[in-house]
Amino acid sequence: MYYARFRDPAGSVRKGRYDPETETVAFGDDVYDFDDPDIDVLPPVDPSKIVCIGRNYAEHAAELGNDVPDRPLLFLKGPNALAGHGDTVTAPEGKDRIDWEAEFVVVIGESCKDVAAEDAMDVVEGFTCMNDVSNRDDQNREQNWVRGKAFDNSAPLGPVVATPDEVPDEASVELHVNGEQKQDGHLGQLIFDVPTLIEEITTYLSLEEGDVIATGTPDGVGPLSDGDTVEVTVEGVGTLEHDVKIP
Amino acid sequence: MYYARFRDPAGSVRKGRYDPETETVAFGDDVYDFDDPDIDVLPPVDPSKIVCIGRNYAEHAAELGNDVPDRPLLFLKGPNALAGHGDTVTAPEGKDRIDWEAEFVVVIGESCKDVAAEDAMDVVEGFTCMNDVSNRDDQNREQNWVRGKAFDNSAPLGPVVATPDEVPDEASVELHVNGEQKQDGHLGQLIFDVPTLIEEITTYLSLEEGDVIATGTPDGVGPLSDGDTVEVTVEGVGTLEHDVKIP
Repeated sequence: MYYARFRDPAGSVRKGRYDPETETVAFGDDVYDFDDPDIDVLPPVDPSKIVCIGRNYAEHAAELGNDVPDRPLLFLKGPNALAGHGDTVTAPEGKDRIDWEAEFVVVIGESCKDVAAEDAMDVVEGFTCMNDVSNRDDQNREQNWVRGKAFDNSAPLGPVVATPDEVPDEASVELHVNGEQKQDGHLGQLIFDVPTLIEEITTYLSLEEGDVIATGTPDGVGPLSDGDTVEVTVEGVGTLEHDVKIP
Repeated sequence: MYYARFRDPAGSVRKGRYDPETETVAFGDDVYDFDDPDIDVLPPVDPSKIVCIGRNYAEHAAELGNDVPDRPLLFLKGPNALAGHGDTVTAPEGKDRIDWEAEFVVVIGESCKDVAAEDAMDVVEGFTCMNDVSNRDDQNREQNWVRGKAFDNSAPLGPVVATPDEVPDEASVELHVNGEQKQDGHLGQLIFDVPTLIEEITTYLSLEEGDVIATGTPDGVGPLSDGDTVEVTVEGVGTLEHDVKIP
């Protein structure tokens, strides 16, 4: 089952059922093509926070010259970072290197704290895709990655939430830029798996319904250029697409 | 002028006018003593994010062995970190050192981005107090201060929002633990002043109405003990009080 959030032609925000065969989203009796210009596709959830994981694939840690962490490397983005499927992501001005990072994202289904790994899937509503757009100029010179990772529209999210039954255990996580493949990982490569992440995060932070955990990126990151079109594809979820503006 | 947020006896969340002379809060015709057990004092705003500044007082940077940063050191807490005046702050389990950090806090009054320093006071609704409760065990071993700074109830905030006219330019920022003074700074000591912080943050992150900027702590930080009572006082705002539980 798949869900999407959108602003309908009357301006109301709706959470509707998405049908991947017909590429339509339905709310009540209204059915819209997903690319209907009369609706505005929104991030599929409205999180109070975005909890991100760094260096959760060994080959990605290596490509940026980092060791694999001994426990999950956590960082935060706020709601200001959200962008949706089909949006244009604008980077902060005057930066030399803005990178793509395809990520598999966990959507939390209920308010929770102190969740044991063995119970973690009970609090998962589903999965989606994110590009963890990264401003390396600042990330590399700050203690906490705020300018580097939490700037406006640094977290394009979507296109839909897929329930867990739709997504294989070792789902592929891929990224294309202007149609050319740049990343090709899968969930079997995660250093810390989803239940481990949920247990570790909720030891310290409550998670709310709609909060998301971005589980890290596979190797193959690289610099975006003005005008690029990015596609993040998670097997069983779909493809998040967005454009890039580098001012 | 002063504002407070509270849950009234019927369970509704209200933003009321606070009168520091009578220590009452009024909403419509209803007037309550601020310590009336029939109301629940809440954090005075409901931020989408808490933007915090590290090492913004030279003597505090020195006491933890750090240099003064060449631009504001930013970090984030999410809404899960909030606690209110009169609440009990519970630390994560099994930590050796949980510190107090009294802070002067800016409350943002409108959605804004790219605010120049000279216009920054136009987006400020007022000021309040925060204890930036810090889990040093984890802060000292993580890249981003999430376990260390963004755990649940690590941001007790309040008691009220004071409009800018109530607060002197060099307002004192003090902290007492069980009645004993531990911190005694003032805003004249800020390395980066409020307009500079707003310009720098909004270069990267939109701020929303109710978002807060915690401007850093003066020197005199130290470890909390189970059962401590903490008071954070900002001149012209008032005193935020909370208890501490260290499990």
